[in-house]
Amino acid sequence: MSPTTEPLTAERILAATEEVLRRHGPAKATVVDVARALGVSHGSVYRHFRTKAALREAVTKRWLDRTSDALAGVAAAERDPGERLRDWFWTLFEAKRHKAGDDPEMFATYQVLAGESGEVVGEHIDELTGQLTGIVAAGVASGAFTAPDPAATARALFHATGRFHDPGYAGEWTRPGVEDEFTAVVDLLMRGLRA
Amino acid sequence: MSPTTEPLTAERILAATEEVLRRHGPAKATVVDVARALGVSHGSVYRHFRTKAALREAVTKRWLDRTSDALAGVAAAERDPGERLRDWFWTLFEAKRHKAGDDPEMFATYQVLAGESGEVVGEHIDELTGQLTGIVAAGVASGAFTAPDPAATARALFHATGRFHDPGYAGEWTRPGVEDEFTAVVDLLMRGLRA
Repeated sequence: MSPTTEPLTAERILAATEEVLRRHGPAKATVVDVARALGVSHGSVYRHFRTKAALREAVTKRWLDRTSDALAGVAAAERDPGERLRDWFWTLFEAKRHKAGDDPEMFATYQVLAGESGEVVGEHIDELTGQLTGIVAAGVASGAFTAPDPAATARALFHATGRFHDPGYAGEWTRPGVEDEFTAVVDLLMRGLRA
Repeated sequence: MSPTTEPLTAERILAATEEVLRRHGPAKATVVDVARALGVSHGSVYRHFRTKAALREAVTKRWLDRTSDALAGVAAAERDPGERLRDWFWTLFEAKRHKAGDDPEMFATYQVLAGESGEVVGEHIDELTGQLTGIVAAGVASGAFTAPDPAATARALFHATGRFHDPGYAGEWTRPGVEDEFTAVVDLLMRGLRA
């Protein structure tokens, strides 16, 4: 990223931070590297992000938001809640598989960053289970699902599908048969919801 | 473990190996340490276990068998398949939590060993899902469960409950609310089975 005359926005700093992380890895990347990549002083970067930790948290949030933003559209679609729920889990699984498979080094880098940013990860999971709660509640409203506490059911659905979105399982996602495993788990959960 | 005149059995070697692993950790424990602990030559150990890798696999299998042996009794009990299934998952969760919580160093040691012994771990998971298949099939036979392919359903149940037995989640097992999470997931799965 070469110096430009564009104003120094938080988004430009975060994009540069991602490039620096890609180049130097999470252990070595510094705020000075980010400033140098942008052709600005490190003080200019610190005016947007008060500490290195705040910058790392923000870039982690940006990475996680890419997934939750993609899922928000699926969660809000006007369609049968059962299909919406299945599509939501499939979209989540596909998004995670792509992140892990297309760019394994960045995936590993963000695992390190996520490990440092427990609060950001917690908010991300709350965002995702919030979307799920909306789908479950819509299914209850339409009479398709039975769930006395849609938020608790959403968390149970999220926990029961961890194999297909928790980064700790990334090694399983390229194995033959994993899509059948996904279908078997989601089918069973859907039956539980409809019961 | 001090030298005795007992015959050198595989079980005595494995018990000594566990002690050596406890004392030296998985990176440093050697066959010579095991032989020394037993007061025998390392050749005597190699007569039972041809390689260091074979010895480490055998001690890992012994550790995993403690869990599957405890569960075998639950799986085979003559009682309502729904209660049996719930009890089986609870017993598994409790066994794993105890292993992780009561002796965290040995738990970590065995995670290292399990990572080296993919085949032994695979056989252990096959053993567990085999027990589960028996419970599901009993439920189908009694009319309590619907499952066209009990083995596939058993695998789905095992995958959907990973949060409560996969060692990667051990950090979650002491958190407040984890038992409610367990109950919410198992309730949902039971409803899916009964549908």
